[in-house]
Amino acid sequence: MDLNKALKASIRDIPDYPKPGIMFRDITTLLGDAKAFRLAVDALVYPYVGTKMDQIAGIEARGFILGGAMAHQLSAGFIPIRKKGKLPYDKVQIAYSLEYGVDEMEMHRDAVKPGQKVILVDDLIATGGTAEAATKLLQQMGADVVAACFVIDLPDLGGRKKIEALGVPVRTLIEYEGH
Amino acid sequence: MDLNKALKASIRDIPDYPKPGIMFRDITTLLGDAKAFRLAVDALVYPYVGTKMDQIAGIEARGFILGGAMAHQLSAGFIPIRKKGKLPYDKVQIAYSLEYGVDEMEMHRDAVKPGQKVILVDDLIATGGTAEAATKLLQQMGADVVAACFVIDLPDLGGRKKIEALGVPVRTLIEYEGH
Repeated sequence: MDLNKALKASIRDIPDYPKPGIMFRDITTLLGDAKAFRLAVDALVYPYVGTKMDQIAGIEARGFILGGAMAHQLSAGFIPIRKKGKLPYDKVQIAYSLEYGVDEMEMHRDAVKPGQKVILVDDLIATGGTAEAATKLLQQMGADVVAACFVIDLPDLGGRKKIEALGVPVRTLIEYEGH
Repeated sequence: MDLNKALKASIRDIPDYPKPGIMFRDITTLLGDAKAFRLAVDALVYPYVGTKMDQIAGIEARGFILGGAMAHQLSAGFIPIRKKGKLPYDKVQIAYSLEYGVDEMEMHRDAVKPGQKVILVDDLIATGGTAEAATKLLQQMGADVVAACFVIDLPDLGGRKKIEALGVPVRTLIEYEGH
């Protein structure tokens, strides 16, 4: 079975969540399937095995699960990019747009050193608003964002182009048409 | 340098956070230190390498980072135990006490199958309220909770005994007296 089919078979589709007309792609069933989880993490990291990667930056909260595994596998550090008010030390913030209104994400000011090679990770890229903000935050602090990785791409929502416009290649494992 | 010293050297102490009199142990500096992060994860998993472990259950949010790495390293699945309202499918809940009031944590009803061997993980055990609730939730769904693992123990706050009273061994890597 190829990677695409194996991963899709492990993802649960939940119709009309969180609201009517939305098909939610639930990756908790992928995470809970030992083989699928291992396959996804290994597929995300394999281009970087043997290269010197300094940090994996994970977006709260599902990006923490994948990012923790990637950081350990690549012997890199891990940077949590968190929702507002969750980090205890000196922080930098960036605002990003939600469907209704704006929110902020935060990172510790000393989490990344200028020139460090960083991979950004989250479970899914849709409109790309949060990933774009996280990429900008890392770049503002001097990081060399080598790639942004996602298990799932919803290409019709155009997130990939926002990240590529920042000079960062996007890697995704599987795609779903529509949203 | 021994494990204890190496890990403590990577943890940032933040006085009077989140309120006066509390010394906050910030593990983001440990996570961001590639060697310390690798050391911590390897020290958490090594007793289980070569055994059949079904699932690592991580408590939101810092337990996701450590648990993702542990699950990948042990070729196990990962179960997210989340704050209320974050999971998309059929859930089970348990209430737990906070310093002021109560809160609930949730897990998908089908996240664990009866008899599956599960390791619970979080970054720190203090009074043990959240870890106790998470252990009970897993046991109620039939899990065989093999161990509860934490990087940091604050032994004066007595959390370890609450987990051991449920028949679950507790493993911690470092301790701080007081709180």
